[in-house]
Amino acid sequence: MKCSRCDRDAVIFIRYNGEHLCAEHFMEFLESRVKHELRKQVDLKPGDRIVVGTSGGKDSTTTVYLLKKIFSMRRDIEIIAVTIDEGIEGYRDRAIGVLSGYLKKIGVEHRIYRIKERFGKTIDEIAMMDKTLIPCTYCGVFRRSLLNSAARELDADYVATGLNLDDTAQSIIMNFARGDLDRLARLGPHSVVKEDLIPRIQPLRMIPEKEVLLYAILRGIEFYHGTCPYADLALRNQFRKAIDEWEARSPGTRHSIVSVYDELKPLLIERYRNFKLNRCEICGDPTPGRICKACELRLRLDKIQNL
Amino acid sequence: MKCSRCDRDAVIFIRYNGEHLCAEHFMEFLESRVKHELRKQVDLKPGDRIVVGTSGGKDSTTTVYLLKKIFSMRRDIEIIAVTIDEGIEGYRDRAIGVLSGYLKKIGVEHRIYRIKERFGKTIDEIAMMDKTLIPCTYCGVFRRSLLNSAARELDADYVATGLNLDDTAQSIIMNFARGDLDRLARLGPHSVVKEDLIPRIQPLRMIPEKEVLLYAILRGIEFYHGTCPYADLALRNQFRKAIDEWEARSPGTRHSIVSVYDELKPLLIERYRNFKLNRCEICGDPTPGRICKACELRLRLDKIQNL
Repeated sequence: MKCSRCDRDAVIFIRYNGEHLCAEHFMEFLESRVKHELRKQVDLKPGDRIVVGTSGGKDSTTTVYLLKKIFSMRRDIEIIAVTIDEGIEGYRDRAIGVLSGYLKKIGVEHRIYRIKERFGKTIDEIAMMDKTLIPCTYCGVFRRSLLNSAARELDADYVATGLNLDDTAQSIIMNFARGDLDRLARLGPHSVVKEDLIPRIQPLRMIPEKEVLLYAILRGIEFYHGTCPYADLALRNQFRKAIDEWEARSPGTRHSIVSVYDELKPLLIERYRNFKLNRCEICGDPTPGRICKACELRLRLDKIQNL
Repeated sequence: MKCSRCDRDAVIFIRYNGEHLCAEHFMEFLESRVKHELRKQVDLKPGDRIVVGTSGGKDSTTTVYLLKKIFSMRRDIEIIAVTIDEGIEGYRDRAIGVLSGYLKKIGVEHRIYRIKERFGKTIDEIAMMDKTLIPCTYCGVFRRSLLNSAARELDADYVATGLNLDDTAQSIIMNFARGDLDRLARLGPHSVVKEDLIPRIQPLRMIPEKEVLLYAILRGIEFYHGTCPYADLALRNQFRKAIDEWEARSPGTRHSIVSVYDELKPLLIERYRNFKLNRCEICGDPTPGRICKACELRLRLDKIQNL
C-alpha cells in the first residue's frame, strides 16, 4: 500500500481518518498533532520550566523527546525529566538504566525521587504487607504525590506526563463508572492553576497508544519494554479491554470519549468553581478532604505494621 | 441465609447494599424504590393519561403491572399499553400473544401499532433488503417514532418505558462513547416538555435487570421469554458486556454511572437550553436536523428498492 501523501510505501493505516502514511508522513502527522495539542494546552513564557514525569516507557520517553524537539529553538524553555522510583525490583531499576542513558544522549537533565525515601517503604514491600488493597492503589497515589512535590521543589511551571489517547479515554470512563465526578472535573490538562497544584500538560493525549509506539520505534527513541509485575491487578485493565473492543468495532470511539469529555469539562469546572481545596492536616498538601490520600495510605501502612 | 429484615429465608442478596431479602421484603424494597423514582420523575394530575411502551418482555410488562398497582387508588389516572409490532416473525407475534392475554387479565387497554403500516416494510423485510445497516438501527428509530406518534394520537401526557438500570447505564456509556452529546442530553426521564415530545418516564431506571426478572417471577407477571433473532447484531451488546464485567468486579458501578449522569444532566440541559428542535421537512416530526431519522431511513429504503 502506498502513502496517501506521497509515493513511498505506507507503514501505517490511520483507521479513524482513512489515511495510509509512510514513515516520514506519519512522523510529521503525529508531530503536527502534538504541536497543535500543546498550543491548545499551554502558552509558554520565557524562562518556563517543564518537569516531565518519565518512567522510561515509550509514552513518557517520547514525551520528553518531543518536548525537547519542539522547543529546540527555544533555549528559554527548560525541560527536566523526573522519575519516581517505586522500588519494584527487576522492573523500575531496569527502566531507569535504559532511561538514564538515553536522557544523557539527548541532553536532558534527569532527577530520581524514591517512594521509599518519602513514604518509608517500596511498593514491593507494601505489596507484601497489605493483602487487601492492590499495590496499584498505593503506587498511583504515592507517585502522584511525589511527582507534585518534586515539581514544586524544582520550581516547575508545568508538569508534563505521557498520557496517550488510550489512557485518557480509560481514565474518563473509569472515573465515570466509579462515580468520581470530582476527579473527573480535575483530570488534566489544566488551564487553571489551583493552589499549589502545578498545571498538567499532556502532549500525547490525542495520540493513540499504537501510534506512540510506532513513532518511538521509527525515531529510534530508546525506551524500556518491560511490564510492571503488578500490572495484572490494576482496575484499569477492564476499562482498557472494553474500550479496545469498542474501538475495534467503531473506530473513533476513543476520540469521541475524549471529545465528549472536553465539551463537558468547562461545565464541570464551572460547577466546581467555588470548590476550595483544603490543606492536608498532616503534610499540608492540597486535598479535597481533611487528610490527603497519600497520608491516609501512610497511616494505613503504620496500622498494618503495628498489628 | 435468613432475610435481613425478618425470619424468613432470603431469596436474593442485594450486593450493592449488603442486604439479604425474603420474597416479601424484596418485593416491598423494589416497589418502594419504584415509587420513590416515580415521585422524582412526575407529578401526576387528575385525568393524566400514561401510555406504556410494552413489548411483552419482563421489563415493560412489569412496568405496566407496577403503574397499574401503584395507581390502583387513583381512578383519575389512565394507563394504556401500546405495543409496536416490528414484524419479526416467531418473536413479536408470540410476545403479543402472551401480552394480550395478560393485559386482559389485569384490565389494561392494549393498542398495537405496526411498523409495516407506517413505514411500508417489516423489520424482517428490511433486514433482507439492507445488507449494510443492521436491522437494529431501523428498529430503534422506527419504534421510537411510532411510539411517539401513537402517544400523540392517544393524547398521552406521559410515555412510560421499561428501561431498567442496566439499560440506562448502557445507554449513557454508549452515547458517551459514540460522542453523541446531544443524545446524551436528551435521554429520559424528561422533566421539561419540549415541542411535541411527550415526556418520558422510566419507573425501573434504578432497578437492576436481575431484580426486575425476580420480581416479575415472584409476582406471577406473565411475560414473553424469547430473544429477538437479531439481538446478536446490536451495538449495545458490547456495552452491556463491559458494564457487566465492571459491575462484577465493583458492585455499584451501574448506580455510579447513572448518578454521575444525573449530576451532569442539568448542566447539559442548561447548555442546550436555547437549542431549538426543527420540524422534519417530510413528516413534520420534531428533529434536531432538517429531516428526521425515521424519514432518512425511509428514503434509504426507497433508494435500495429502486436499485
